[in-house]
Amino acid sequence: MATLSFQSPTKPISYFQPKSKPSPLFAKVSIFRCRATVQTLVAVEPEPIYTSVKTFAPATVANLGPGFDFLGCAVDGLGDHVTLRVDPSVRAGEILISEITGTTTKLSTNPLRNCAGIAAIATMKMLGIRSVGLSLDLHKGLPLGSGLGSSAASAAAAAVAVNEIFGKKLGNDELVLAGLESEAKVSGYHADNIAPAIMGGFVLIRNYEPLDLKPLKFPVDKELYFVLVTPEFEAPTKKMRAALPTEIPMVHHVWNSSQAAALVAAVLEGDAVMLGKALSSDKVVEPKRAPLIPGMEAVKKAALEAGAFGCTISGAGPTAVAVIDSEKKGGVIGEKMVEAFWNVGHLKSVASVKKLDKIGARLVSSISR
Amino acid sequence: MATLSFQSPTKPISYFQPKSKPSPLFAKVSIFRCRATVQTLVAVEPEPIYTSVKTFAPATVANLGPGFDFLGCAVDGLGDHVTLRVDPSVRAGEILISEITGTTTKLSTNPLRNCAGIAAIATMKMLGIRSVGLSLDLHKGLPLGSGLGSSAASAAAAAVAVNEIFGKKLGNDELVLAGLESEAKVSGYHADNIAPAIMGGFVLIRNYEPLDLKPLKFPVDKELYFVLVTPEFEAPTKKMRAALPTEIPMVHHVWNSSQAAALVAAVLEGDAVMLGKALSSDKVVEPKRAPLIPGMEAVKKAALEAGAFGCTISGAGPTAVAVIDSEKKGGVIGEKMVEAFWNVGHLKSVASVKKLDKIGARLVSSISR
Repeated sequence: MATLSFQSPTKPISYFQPKSKPSPLFAKVSIFRCRATVQTLVAVEPEPIYTSVKTFAPATVANLGPGFDFLGCAVDGLGDHVTLRVDPSVRAGEILISEITGTTTKLSTNPLRNCAGIAAIATMKMLGIRSVGLSLDLHKGLPLGSGLGSSAASAAAAAVAVNEIFGKKLGNDELVLAGLESEAKVSGYHADNIAPAIMGGFVLIRNYEPLDLKPLKFPVDKELYFVLVTPEFEAPTKKMRAALPTEIPMVHHVWNSSQAAALVAAVLEGDAVMLGKALSSDKVVEPKRAPLIPGMEAVKKAALEAGAFGCTISGAGPTAVAVIDSEKKGGVIGEKMVEAFWNVGHLKSVASVKKLDKIGARLVSSISR
Repeated sequence: MATLSFQSPTKPISYFQPKSKPSPLFAKVSIFRCRATVQTLVAVEPEPIYTSVKTFAPATVANLGPGFDFLGCAVDGLGDHVTLRVDPSVRAGEILISEITGTTTKLSTNPLRNCAGIAAIATMKMLGIRSVGLSLDLHKGLPLGSGLGSSAASAAAAAVAVNEIFGKKLGNDELVLAGLESEAKVSGYHADNIAPAIMGGFVLIRNYEPLDLKPLKFPVDKELYFVLVTPEFEAPTKKMRAALPTEIPMVHHVWNSSQAAALVAAVLEGDAVMLGKALSSDKVVEPKRAPLIPGMEAVKKAALEAGAFGCTISGAGPTAVAVIDSEKKGGVIGEKMVEAFWNVGHLKSVASVKKLDKIGARLVSSISR
């Protein structure tokens, strides 16, 4: 366990009495490396309105084929939980990560080296918290490096927890900026996971400077389902990004842009068939990344043959994501995708069928003061 | 005047007794060069239900900034008219262009060298017309080479006229294919003018093989206005296309795709401000083409400073198009844009304020048999 001092909203965050000399990795960690360092945004430091809150943030599918680097959506029923408490034993203005449970025990409890910690600190900074100490438990529901926005889910749950405990003074855009501080460390300054993790539904990232997010509302009376198949395979984001060309042919640009445009129309009109077709049509990114994930091309083929409207790589992979309009169809499609990962890629994999999360990171429970 | 034989729906269209040897240009003309040669689509040759029809097709703004080569929209109150008559003096299965009036007299009356003629022939072929001769008058309302879809307007008006006179057997997709036969001759096989000219509103071209058009419905209760400023300057489509790179940086691809996606969201939600911003944000095409149109950059700046939500080049230019949400604002914005064309580009120009055409090519009047 490590604690972090958050002394002043105007001063840099510093470590609180590290027991040993920071390791080189440790030394490199600084939230002030982020492109958009957060600022205190409230005039008066808010008081906590709860003694404890529990929050949930969903998994996310970024890229969505032709939406590479600017489009993502949230997936219901998969995600991370954060429990945040006002803790008199923690020094005022500091945060302590007391416990990490769930799918992984690999994560650091140092708040500066933990996605939830970094996002919580950034949110505390935005709120100007100097008088209250907090302790945070993180329960991971998502595996790391699966392409389902694991780091974003932790960051989103933490940012929302801090905001909730102090009376919800910050809006979604600020929370996304707080989460971006964390994402910048893990996979680059990209909001296509953190924005939908916080806001739910589909989110289009129009700009970073200044941050300009456009929520795309899937019709309330329609449902959208995802078949998510995660193989036992490591696809590091950096390697997957390095596989991409720095220049692309104009014809592919025109094609992919038109498919991204169609994808957005499909989302707003709730047209799952068109959405699947557009998501499946990427000629820029997927053709470079799919060959790096054994069996991915066969998995896509199997999904489409089994009736999925479309299939692509979720985020930077290795999870494959297929789109359908009913939960019922998902079982068979998932089985066929798992079979293809095994038969062609020789990879074990796990399938699940999840619907679109239209809410985003949320308060699950709270204890009032 | 020239006539064209349309002997059989399965045989190639041939010239009808050309008086002299075809010129090299003439000889090159063949609608069978088009990528998608039209086929007869009706089982029984329809009979004309009118002796005469008059149609109108609107001007169109293609590209719309980041929608390069796949997005276009129709503009009300500017366009071309076609009058089409069942003409017993014209040989059965043939079409004659009897008169061309309006903004230009430069156009050929040979149906194979005239946009309206080519589209009419393609539509006749789709309908399998062998028993009726037609004569066509074209009234041009649009100047040539202005970037406002002049050729598409002629083709759309002609295709719709033929379809109407024979009882409207063909749908929009077929009419767009007929129009594409004509467009392929003039500016390449691109549907971003002809599709909105026929269908009205905004149209997203998702695919050509097979043709896949997605109409994007601007909300019925909202209006959108365009300030169109056309300078006295020639910007040939081929030259403007040659100015474009064959490869583009990935970062520009991601940026432009996200703006195209935002543009589509703005259209469907009727958000003129977001639409203008997206239309104005092209980093791929406009930066290469604007410098070729004297004063264009200053015109854009003037439009934005005068309150336009966005401004870009219409089609391949030279017309500049700015977006606003009320007709009233258009006058001043147009004046400022004309001023900038004169002061910086030393070009005379003409401004007009037009609203979005939500209907497309239409029957204006008809005389029943």
